[in-house]
Amino acid sequence: MDVWDGHKHVENDPAYKGLNVNKGVESLPSVNPDAAKRFLGRKRSKLTVDQYVEGILEGNVTILSRAVTMIESSKPEHQEVAQQIIEKCVPYAGKSVRLGITGVPGAGKSTFIEALGMHILKRGGKLAVLAIDPSSERSRGSILGDKTRMEKLSAEKNAYIRPSPSAGSLGGVARKTRETIILCEAAGFDTIFIETVGVGQSETAVHSMVDFFLLLMLAGAGDELQGIKRGIMEMADAIAINKADGQNIQKAKMARTEYRNALHLFPPTQSGWTPRVEICSSLFDEGVEDVWEMILEYVKMTRENGYFSNNRREQSKYWMFESINEQLKNNFYHHPEIKGELKQYEKKVLNAETSSFIAARDLLNKYFDKL
Amino acid sequence: MDVWDGHKHVENDPAYKGLNVNKGVESLPSVNPDAAKRFLGRKRSKLTVDQYVEGILEGNVTILSRAVTMIESSKPEHQEVAQQIIEKCVPYAGKSVRLGITGVPGAGKSTFIEALGMHILKRGGKLAVLAIDPSSERSRGSILGDKTRMEKLSAEKNAYIRPSPSAGSLGGVARKTRETIILCEAAGFDTIFIETVGVGQSETAVHSMVDFFLLLMLAGAGDELQGIKRGIMEMADAIAINKADGQNIQKAKMARTEYRNALHLFPPTQSGWTPRVEICSSLFDEGVEDVWEMILEYVKMTRENGYFSNNRREQSKYWMFESINEQLKNNFYHHPEIKGELKQYEKKVLNAETSSFIAARDLLNKYFDKL
Repeated sequence: MDVWDGHKHVENDPAYKGLNVNKGVESLPSVNPDAAKRFLGRKRSKLTVDQYVEGILEGNVTILSRAVTMIESSKPEHQEVAQQIIEKCVPYAGKSVRLGITGVPGAGKSTFIEALGMHILKRGGKLAVLAIDPSSERSRGSILGDKTRMEKLSAEKNAYIRPSPSAGSLGGVARKTRETIILCEAAGFDTIFIETVGVGQSETAVHSMVDFFLLLMLAGAGDELQGIKRGIMEMADAIAINKADGQNIQKAKMARTEYRNALHLFPPTQSGWTPRVEICSSLFDEGVEDVWEMILEYVKMTRENGYFSNNRREQSKYWMFESINEQLKNNFYHHPEIKGELKQYEKKVLNAETSSFIAARDLLNKYFDKL
Repeated sequence: MDVWDGHKHVENDPAYKGLNVNKGVESLPSVNPDAAKRFLGRKRSKLTVDQYVEGILEGNVTILSRAVTMIESSKPEHQEVAQQIIEKCVPYAGKSVRLGITGVPGAGKSTFIEALGMHILKRGGKLAVLAIDPSSERSRGSILGDKTRMEKLSAEKNAYIRPSPSAGSLGGVARKTRETIILCEAAGFDTIFIETVGVGQSETAVHSMVDFFLLLMLAGAGDELQGIKRGIMEMADAIAINKADGQNIQKAKMARTEYRNALHLFPPTQSGWTPRVEICSSLFDEGVEDVWEMILEYVKMTRENGYFSNNRREQSKYWMFESINEQLKNNFYHHPEIKGELKQYEKKVLNAETSSFIAARDLLNKYFDKL
C-alpha cells in the first residue's frame, strides 16, 4: 500500500461525510497545491510508463486519473507517454460491459446514472462513468462538469467519475474517451457508462464504442423530443422513460405504449435484440433495477449468439479506420497553407461561384504540393 | 442542328415504336461501332470543353451523356475534362428540385418513378433519373442496370435516365452522381430523381444531395422492413406505401396509420416540415399525383421559410469537405506502402493484440514518412 492507496482509503472512509474531492483532480489548479503536497507527503513527481501501468493495474484511481489527463493533454510528450501506457494496458482491457446513455438535458441523466450505478455497486460491480461532450468548451461544462452532480456515486470507492475532456473536435474527444475506456478496464472497472447529450453528433461515436445504447426520455411524447436529434431513436437498444412518478405515471405508461408501437415498425437490429421501452423513476429508484436486468439479459443473449464479441471486433476495426481518417483530416485542416485558403473556398462554394468538387480539388493540389 | 440533334430526334420520333437505345450508350462496346458510325455520318470525334458545355446548355442529351461518361471515367485525362465542363456548368446549375427515392428491392421503385415521372412530364417538367448504387459492381447492375425497366419514361424526350455509375467506393459514386446533377441541371432538367436501394450506406449520401427524401414502403408492416437499414426512416420527409391496390388497400391503410403514429414520435425536422405518410398504387396510378402535390407543397413551404436555399448551401459546403476527406483517404489507402501493412494491422486489432489507436498511429507515421 502506497500513499496513493492511503489517500484513496481516507477519502472513501465510510465515516467521511464531507463532499468528496474526486480523485485525479489534484493536477487541476483549483486544488490548493500546498494541501495536496502536505497530504501526499511529497511533491507530485513524474511517473514512468511502467509506474503508470502498474498503478492502473492495481486499480489505483489517482494514477488512473493522471494517465487519463495525459490522454487528454494536447502536448506531444504527454501523448507519447499516453500511447505507451495504453499499449501496455490493452491486453488487460475489454472485459467490461460498456453502456451508452443519452438523453436531452432535463431527462434526468445524472439521477438515473446515480440510481443505476448504485445497483451495480450493490451487486459488487466496479463502475466508471465517462462522458462525451464536444460542445463543453462552448457551454463550459454542460455535462459532468460539476462532479457533485452525482454525490452518492462519487462517494463510493468502486465508482470512478471522470468529466468530459474539455473541448476538441468530436473525433478527438471520441478517441480520448475510447482510450480512457481501455485504461478504466485495465484498472478493473467492469462496467463503463458513456454519457452523452442527445443533441449533437456524438451519439454515433458513442454508439460505436458501447455494447448497449440506452435512450433516456421523458413522458409527454412530443415536447421533450424537440431537442433529440433525428436518428438517435433508431440506434437505441432500449428507451427508458424517466420521471415516471407521481402524476407522471399515467403519461409515462401511455408514452411507453406509443414508443413500443413505434419501435415495432423499425427494422430489426443486427444483434437480434428487439429494442425495449421501459418506464422508471430514478428519483424514487423504481424500475431502475429492471433496466439493469434488461441490460444483463441483452449481454447474455448477445454473448450467446456471438454478436457481443463480433461487434467489439468490428468496433475496434472501425476505430482504427476512424483514427486514421481523423488524423489525415487533422493534418490537412491544420496545415498553415490550407487554413487561410479554406475560408476563401468555402465562401465561393456557399455563393455557388464554384462547385464543391473543384474547390476540393484545388485545395488538395495545394496541400500535396506543400507536403 | 448538328448530327447529334438529328440522332436525338430520330430516336424520339413519336412514330418510332421500337425499344429505345438510351442516349449516351454509344460509347459502350455493346453498340456496334459501324452502325453508330454510319448513323452519325462520321467517326465519333473528341469534343472540346466548350463544345461539351455548349451542347449541354442546349439540352443535347447525347452530349450530356458523353460528359457524364467523362465524369464516370477513371482516366485522369477524362477527369480533367470533366472538371472543366462542370466548372463551366456550375453557374447554370441549381435550378431544379432534387428528390431522393429509396426503398428495398420489391417496393416498386421503377414503377413508382415511371408513374410519378409521367405526371411531371405532363405538367411540362423535364426529368432526369439518376441512381446511386455502389454495390452494382458486385450485383452486376441491381439497380437501373436494365434501362428498359422504365419503358414509358425512356421513350419520352423530356426524360433522361442514366444508370448508376458502375462500381467504385460510395464516396466516389456519390461524387459522380452529384457532378452529374450539375450537368443535368445545366442541360435544363428541372426535376432530378436520385434513386437508391435502401439497404446500404448510400442513403445518407443521397439525403445530403436532395431537397426531399422519399421512402417507398409496402403494406404489411414488419416483413418488408427486414431489408431497410435502421436510421433511414428518420431521414424521410415522406413515406409512400406503394402497391395499395386490390386486396392490399386495407393493409396499406392500416400501415399508413401505424407509420403516422410512429413518425409523430420522431423529433421535428430542421426544415419545419412534418413528415407525411401516404398510400399509392403506381401500377394503377392512384395517389401518385398526390405524392407530387405533397412534394410541391414541401418545396413551397421550405422556399418560403428559407430552409430550401439554406439547405442547398449547407449541402454544398458539406460536399466540399466530403470530397476533401474522400481524397485524403484515397491517397492513404491506395498508397502502395500502406496497402500491404494495413491488412497486418487490421488483423492485430481484430485479435486485440494492439489498440486501434496505436495501429492507426503506426500506419500514419509510415505514410507521412513516405510522402
